[in-house]
Amino acid sequence: MKQPTRAWLVLAQAYVRVPELVRLQARFGSIDEITAAPASALRESGLAAEKCAAISAPDDGPIDAALAWLEDEGHHVVAWGEADYPPMLTEIPGPPLLLYVNGDIDALHMPSLAIVGSRNPTEGGVRNAEQFSRHLAARGLSIVSGLAQGIDTAAHRGALRAGGATVAVLGTGIDRVYPSSNLALAHDIAAGGALVSEYPLGTAPERWHFPERNRLISGLSLGTLVVEAARRSGSLITARLAAEQGREVFALPGSIHNALARGCHALIRQGAKLVETADDIFEELQPLATHAAQATEPQEPVSVQIEDDEDYNALRRCLGHDPVGIDELEKCSGLTIDKLSSMLLILELHGEVESLSGGRYALLS
Amino acid sequence: MKQPTRAWLVLAQAYVRVPELVRLQARFGSIDEITAAPASALRESGLAAEKCAAISAPDDGPIDAALAWLEDEGHHVVAWGEADYPPMLTEIPGPPLLLYVNGDIDALHMPSLAIVGSRNPTEGGVRNAEQFSRHLAARGLSIVSGLAQGIDTAAHRGALRAGGATVAVLGTGIDRVYPSSNLALAHDIAAGGALVSEYPLGTAPERWHFPERNRLISGLSLGTLVVEAARRSGSLITARLAAEQGREVFALPGSIHNALARGCHALIRQGAKLVETADDIFEELQPLATHAAQATEPQEPVSVQIEDDEDYNALRRCLGHDPVGIDELEKCSGLTIDKLSSMLLILELHGEVESLSGGRYALLS
Repeated sequence: MKQPTRAWLVLAQAYVRVPELVRLQARFGSIDEITAAPASALRESGLAAEKCAAISAPDDGPIDAALAWLEDEGHHVVAWGEADYPPMLTEIPGPPLLLYVNGDIDALHMPSLAIVGSRNPTEGGVRNAEQFSRHLAARGLSIVSGLAQGIDTAAHRGALRAGGATVAVLGTGIDRVYPSSNLALAHDIAAGGALVSEYPLGTAPERWHFPERNRLISGLSLGTLVVEAARRSGSLITARLAAEQGREVFALPGSIHNALARGCHALIRQGAKLVETADDIFEELQPLATHAAQATEPQEPVSVQIEDDEDYNALRRCLGHDPVGIDELEKCSGLTIDKLSSMLLILELHGEVESLSGGRYALLS
Repeated sequence: MKQPTRAWLVLAQAYVRVPELVRLQARFGSIDEITAAPASALRESGLAAEKCAAISAPDDGPIDAALAWLEDEGHHVVAWGEADYPPMLTEIPGPPLLLYVNGDIDALHMPSLAIVGSRNPTEGGVRNAEQFSRHLAARGLSIVSGLAQGIDTAAHRGALRAGGATVAVLGTGIDRVYPSSNLALAHDIAAGGALVSEYPLGTAPERWHFPERNRLISGLSLGTLVVEAARRSGSLITARLAAEQGREVFALPGSIHNALARGCHALIRQGAKLVETADDIFEELQPLATHAAQATEPQEPVSVQIEDDEDYNALRRCLGHDPVGIDELEKCSGLTIDKLSSMLLILELHGEVESLSGGRYALLS
């Protein structure tokens, strides 16, 4: 992390929100200058006294603990305005100031789909969640979910089995796992994607965190798929947030005798897209993924030029008819994984490239 | 029928369409005056020469046969502009000039729901069709369908089991039943509702009749419910026609692994209302039904009296435990073959008579 990490941790611990940060930056300049300012000066910017005190005289214990946690491999914090901050979260209301990440930050920059649903699904629901996740992760989407039992677990597992990326957004501190039955899964996710939390280290799984956390599940994603959900359930909150964030909402229909299809049917009546196959979702997200990729690269032209583009030609030279993993493509092309993912998606859309299991790609034609 | 029946049959046999009829009426006045006019005068109204000839010099054979058919109890024709013409059909494009009806005309004036679907449904689909039909028929809706195997059959049966009304719209002449496996069902429908056809007596089940017929299934109804349907199926034609007629379209969702849910899902994506319970439909139709009910006059339901009926007793005297052919029964009883057929089927349904090969019958008990 290039920015002054301690200063970010101080601001996060003081519960400074993004609009407040923007006002502070306008007045003081850098993050370091904000944390170096006396409480009285901070007060003049309109910040609440409690927050001013927490910035000018921070509790060092938790901050030192976080810095110690950051020493470990794969542990990161990403902060508002930084290059590694997830671009999709810059577009939502109430973006987090700081995210704790355990795993691969690139997973937060890939085109993503949230898959959520009941903690007590039917066997068919579990199977559907896992199959959709596996199929779409293999095609280059990062699968975002909430590490709960049931559909969330199946969604994460499906992506991991495809050798794809998956992101679990926690309602606890990044150093805790809830439910504890998913400890092994959390470990696998950190290795094959990322665990993410906006809560300070050690935060317990409070019930009210989960709806708040859900805005990040939908917010990180181009769309949210609800697999099975009762009429009143957290999954419907995530779907509602997705709609409010201007993201796609997908729902799987089911038998009228399946109580866990009711939530999905309610969403479909409200305008969610009814999907029968993973391809239904892929077709909807493909153009958005292209668009999102452009939005994160403002220097790129508005229309995607892939014919005589230097980067695309570099990528083409690295691809062959034998499947190649994305890591090899990174080394060969010198492009970032983030950029490669969106370029590969665009080439797939143009029928030049085939996406294979295990995040491997091959030239078609 | 109070209007000059023969004249109507002549016009129907000449394939006169409703807009043409309206022009003829404006010029000639009554139906009788139209059929009494010379072909040259008819030509002046712009009617095709072939139709003019068919009106001024009609083929009497089929018309006499239809008049003979009309002698039997429960046999009717209802014609455009008459009080007993189904009011819902006056609102659709291409209304039939004439309908042949076997049963209770009142069933065509009740608030109605069409229930249609696959000829090869799943067991669950059959159960759903029957339950929705039973529930809604018990609440006063007439259930309209097409007498096909599968969902149609379940829909008719459900209404009959509720003691409610049901209407089968045929793609054949009213005196024919297709498929023949539904002969007993057809007789139950004639007794507990109505069989309806716009085709002349004796018309065979030509494939091209069925899509044309479907406009009457949807057209008689406030809405059409599709229970199970493959992606390409006649049920989707009926649903499309319903939408074009400005009627409601309802579809039952199902598992994404059920191929017969695909047609329903396609309809839902196109804007059909996803329904989970019969109440979902009732709530939508109730305000429409109240509106439609103002045009109808409630009457006593038709019930079949076979115990002390003179004709049935005459037939019983001709039957014995040795098989008897229908021709002998005709001579013995003095009843028409057509009437005998339906009476024999009703007796068969009641367990009094056994039907044997070669069109022969014997008393059971």
